[in-house]
Amino acid sequence: MERVCFLIRVKPEHMDEYKRRHREVWPEMLQALSDTGWHNYSLFLREDGLMVGYFETPDLEAARSGMAALEVNSKWQAEMLPYFAEIEPGKRPDESFMRLEEVFHLD
Amino acid sequence: MERVCFLIRVKPEHMDEYKRRHREVWPEMLQALSDTGWHNYSLFLREDGLMVGYFETPDLEAARSGMAALEVNSKWQAEMLPYFAEIEPGKRPDESFMRLEEVFHLD
Repeated sequence: MERVCFLIRVKPEHMDEYKRRHREVWPEMLQALSDTGWHNYSLFLREDGLMVGYFETPDLEAARSGMAALEVNSKWQAEMLPYFAEIEPGKRPDESFMRLEEVFHLD
Repeated sequence: MERVCFLIRVKPEHMDEYKRRHREVWPEMLQALSDTGWHNYSLFLREDGLMVGYFETPDLEAARSGMAALEVNSKWQAEMLPYFAEIEPGKRPDESFMRLEEVFHLD
């Protein structure tokens, strides 16, 4: 398993709505994540909107391209787009995340 | 298991040294972490020094107080202290981390 940590920024004024949406993620979206290899996936939010994502996957490129090909993900990303800051024009949130280097791991 | 995500800041000028030290963490330190309930523990570093920690534990307070009581941890924290930015005077790095709120999880 590859461990992936990424950062993205939520607009402070949309944090409550972002959190609410993530308490009721569509079942089809959860199934799609599982099916494409997004495991032990968590999102953590700092008070100023900085968001940390963490997940484990057997193949990051397969996980990303697998999700990118699914209509349910396109719909979800379109609905999430207004909540994020610093997304380049024309990009979706899931194309915009910055991956961090793993410098230590202990099982 | 409780999932814990925290942030701390490494001084940019000490990032290489910090990474090197974390490729050769003392075996006694790794054993102490395991013994006190720090599981699936990873550190991720952004290019500017922002560091994300992620671990899973049955009891966060037991994990923190357990490590805080061990001499090997005191020695390790003292050696790590110069690498970190924004540590309050008189505090150790492991007393200074900022925990983030988990807003989503998928097993």
